[in-house]
Formats: sequence, structure tokens, C-alpha cells
Amino acid sequence: MPAKSPVIVDLKFIPEEVEAALAGAFPDREVINLADAAHERRDLSGIAYAVVWKPAPDLFSRAPDLEVVFSGGAGVDHVLTLPGLPEVPLVRFVDRSLTTRMSEWVVMQCLLHLRQHRAYEALARKHEWRDLIQPEAADVTVGIMGMGVLGQDAARKLATMGFKVIGWSRTKRDVKGIETYDAAGLDAVLARTDFLVGLLPLTAETRGIFNADLFAKLSRRGPFGAPVFINAGRGGSQVEAGILDCLDSGVLAAASLDVFEEEPLSPESRFWDMPNVYVTPHVAAASDVKALFAHVEHQIGRFESGLPLEHVVDKIAGY
Amino acid sequence: MPAKSPVIVDLKFIPEEVEAALAGAFPDREVINLADAAHERRDLSGIAYAVVWKPAPDLFSRAPDLEVVFSGGAGVDHVLTLPGLPEVPLVRFVDRSLTTRMSEWVVMQCLLHLRQHRAYEALARKHEWRDLIQPEAADVTVGIMGMGVLGQDAARKLATMGFKVIGWSRTKRDVKGIETYDAAGLDAVLARTDFLVGLLPLTAETRGIFNADLFAKLSRRGPFGAPVFINAGRGGSQVEAGILDCLDSGVLAAASLDVFEEEPLSPESRFWDMPNVYVTPHVAAASDVKALFAHVEHQIGRFESGLPLEHVVDKIAGY
Repeated sequence: MPAKSPVIVDLKFIPEEVEAALAGAFPDREVINLADAAHERRDLSGIAYAVVWKPAPDLFSRAPDLEVVFSGGAGVDHVLTLPGLPEVPLVRFVDRSLTTRMSEWVVMQCLLHLRQHRAYEALARKHEWRDLIQPEAADVTVGIMGMGVLGQDAARKLATMGFKVIGWSRTKRDVKGIETYDAAGLDAVLARTDFLVGLLPLTAETRGIFNADLFAKLSRRGPFGAPVFINAGRGGSQVEAGILDCLDSGVLAAASLDVFEEEPLSPESRFWDMPNVYVTPHVAAASDVKALFAHVEHQIGRFESGLPLEHVVDKIAGY
Repeated sequence: MPAKSPVIVDLKFIPEEVEAALAGAFPDREVINLADAAHERRDLSGIAYAVVWKPAPDLFSRAPDLEVVFSGGAGVDHVLTLPGLPEVPLVRFVDRSLTTRMSEWVVMQCLLHLRQHRAYEALARKHEWRDLIQPEAADVTVGIMGMGVLGQDAARKLATMGFKVIGWSRTKRDVKGIETYDAAGLDAVLARTDFLVGLLPLTAETRGIFNADLFAKLSRRGPFGAPVFINAGRGGSQVEAGILDCLDSGVLAAASLDVFEEEPLSPESRFWDMPNVYVTPHVAAASDVKALFAHVEHQIGRFESGLPLEHVVDKIAGY
């Protein structure tokens, strides 16, 4: 029996987390972690698998024999646009942990806006004990754009918290207890939405979709008088100049942004200091690295047993 | 048919909210809102009902003929300790809105600590794009002390978000999907608890229960190395000197406090400025005033039809 192919790991995550997760992972094959300088000139030909997140630009020329590429995250646009991506299956990372982490972030951001957290923090800084008129979750309609695995989980949890929730996706999804719309229903969704949550993949159709024209169509009948934009999908889906204009003019009341057109976000960006904007550094659904390796091991096991791979990306649709 | 008894309203809420909620409330009887200076010397004898939250000290001597007293909130200790409280039924405010608001606050506080919100806010102030090692909800056990209506709802929602949840109350409650303990199980609950949520009524038994001795029994095996204390029950249940000591010494990693031994919290309190403490001004479950009046109307309707009142407080147990 030939030796099992090694696995290339090229993950721009926190290096210590990757190291820690690799202890015990892939017990029956070699792991080539490109973060390790020892592999700088390693011959990668003949290797069948790579797990990547923002990999080195020369990875695919160095490793010409890959049979499966695994994305280190749920999003795959950063892999699809890599020069030299081989014509082999690309497998997305889907796991319970990634999904629940994303919903943690989305629910927290919706609650921060609902519960006027920044206003209470400002009062606390002044040592001022004063209550504000407090709408409840049922007074707010959250519209989710992107109703895949992540959007459906967030929808269910937001509904449990008491929010009214509606969902939009290119093709309508039937989600128990949630009113959903397809592409043609976009304006109807926007007109009802007080808090807009973006969980879209980045494709040709979604690039720049979150712009001033779209924000102008959102509901202004919510308890805060103007809508809130919350994006944890992809930065390329948003037009940041439009977000800033709408925050300045009051078309948007506030925002929560985990993703940006260019990452890392420039230290010069106005977003960092805006009193009505929460910025997080693309950590909403940071992958659990141990879970990622378990998922890759499981899929390699299927592949080597002749079973079909799961969660294979449709490269034409882009997700 | 004799005229229906007026209702006395003495609620130290936001006055405009009470005024707005009174429009259309109690259509078939007079409302005497003591916030209105016109009623300053009004004769309150012969009046059967009062809805109170932190009422005037002389209310019960001015209104000697009350037949039912309604608390404006879920907690009733502030009414039970009033001098001259008549020997008539005291009805607590239980409603869907109050319960869901409390769970909004509790879930948000647990997520703020889980997702290291203050650390990310500090990075944002420095315009620094950096991710932190991120435990997920399933890595954290939330122990809830107080498993009444509010505790049960919070438990269910925290579990939906992915937290491990255990519950404690004086007498064991059976809650589907949640492991619960009774009085004898206190130390066992504490030893497992990473985030301690207080939703206890204030009684002789719970006064000062959240003290340094109790905090020292909490788990230190959680992902943040030290436990977090979150109190939205009653300030009288906590010993603030002990909380401060434990925060200073690292026995507690952080806290979220909505209630305090003395309210309003003194502007001199150290809590306001502590980087690991969230302070809110007793607003976790601010009553929806419209819902409160609807509840009072409904109970008065039952009372006048000879039906038993609901949600009557056991004055001996204190809740």
C-alpha cells in the first residue's frame, strides 16, 4: 500500500492556534505546515491535499498535483480568485462550531443595537444613572440577506430571542417559522427591515450590493427611526463610501462591521472611531481549527474510500 | 351599580412613558396618577387598587382602603418592606415582555463576556486589527441561580445560543433540557459554573448570598481562567465590597451588574470605570408600561368577577 499523501497547511490564522490544533491531527499522514520555515523550499509535487486560508500566491505552482483543495473558512471567494487554482474539487468548511460562532456574533450585534449599549456605556463613563426608553426585540424586524447554513441558524436564534425575522436569498429557502423571499422580493424585504444582517457569499451578483441605494430602501418605521446595517458576510459585498455617507446623513442609524473591502481595515478608516459603529476584525465566525482539521480528515477519508466529497463549492455560482 | 373604584398609579418610571401608556388604559374607571401635582392633596380613602414601584412612603396611610396592591415589576421586595403595607393580596407583574427583555439582557451580557467585547473595543480605540483566541459558547457553563419564570426563559435561550446551562433554585425546578439542582446542590452548581447569572428574588435567605465566599467556589476551569458574575436580580443579594475584592484579586474575571445595594449607584462607585465591568441602571427588564396596565386591568377584571387573582405573592417566602 503506498504511503498516504501528506497534507499541506497554509492558514493565515493565529499561528499558535494552528500549531495547537495540529497536535494529534492527521495521525496517519505527514502535515506540511507552511508557517514552519523548515518547509520554505520543500518540494510539494505529488501532494494531493491542501488546507488554505489566504495562501501564499505561489502555492498552486509549487503544488501542481493537488487533488482536493479545502477552504479554511465558510467563504471561498478568497480561494476562487487565486491565480492558478487547479481544476479540482474545492471543499468549503461547514461545521457546527463555525455556524454557532457566527450566530453568537450576529445575535450579540442585534442585541447591542436593540439595548442601546453604546448609549449606556456613554452614560456609565459620565457615572450617570439614567434609563432610556427601551423597545423590545419584538418591535424590531431583522432582515437577513443570505439564507444558507449560517443565515438559517442566525434566523432561528434571533427569532428565539424575540425578534421578528425575515429572510432573503437568490433562490427562496423554506425555513420553518421564518418568512422568506427570493431575488424578486428584495425591495419588499428591505421595506420591512429595521436591522439588515448581511450573510451573503461574495459573487459577481453580490459584489457591492450593500450600497446607498439599497440602504435608502430600508424601513424607517422601526423604533430607532432609521435602520441598522450589520455585515458578517464579505467586505466585497459592501460599498464603504456609501455606508459612511448614510451614517453621516442619518439614512443609517448605526452599523456593525466584521468585514471590509480591504482587510486589515486601514488604521486611517473613520469606522474605528464612530460612536454608532461596532468594528471587529473579521472574527465573527473564526474557524475552530481543531474542527477544521477533523472536517478535512473526514472528507479525505471519504475521498480515499471512493465516496463523494461533501460541501463541494459550485465554482460557477461562486458558493 | 356603584361606580368602579379608581386606580392609584405611583410608578417611579420615566414619567413620559407612564403618561403615554395611560392613554387608553382603564377606560371604565378613573386613574389617579400621583406624578400629577393636581393629586397632591387628593383624598385617597375608599380606593381599592394601587399600582406601585418605589411608591411614596405615605401612600398606604393616605390610601387605607386598598383591596389589592400591584407591583410595577417582577420583584416585590421593594413593596414587601414598605411601612404600612396593608394585609391585602400583592400581585406581581408577570408578562411576556418583561421576561423576554430580561433574557435579552442576560444573553447579551453572556455574549459580551464570551466574545471579549471590551477587549475588541480597546483594540478598536487603538485602530488595531488583531484577533484573539475565541472560545465558543459550548466551552462555557452558565449557572443560573433563580429558576422562576425569568430564570427558565434565560436558561432556554442561553442553551439555544450554544451555552451549557445549569440551574439552581431553593426548590428544584424541572426544566426540559436543563440540568437543575435544589438548595443542597449549591456547591455542586458553583463548582461547574463559569458564568454565574443571578436572577434571585430578594428574601431573608438570598440577602448577601453573592459574596466572596460564594465566588471562591466557582469554577476556574473555564476558557477565561476565572469566573464572571452577572446579576439582574436584586442588588440586596450581592455584597459589593466582596465583588470589588474578587475583581481586584482575580477571583472574578469580570462582572455585569444591573442592580446595586443602593440605587441609583453612587457617582463615586468604582464599578462605573472598571474595564471588566458592565454597569446598567436597573434596566435589564424595564417593564413595558402598557403591558403592565393591561395586566392590572385583567387582574382587576378577575377580582371584580369573583375569580381568584393570579401571580399573588407569598409574603412569607418573599416572592
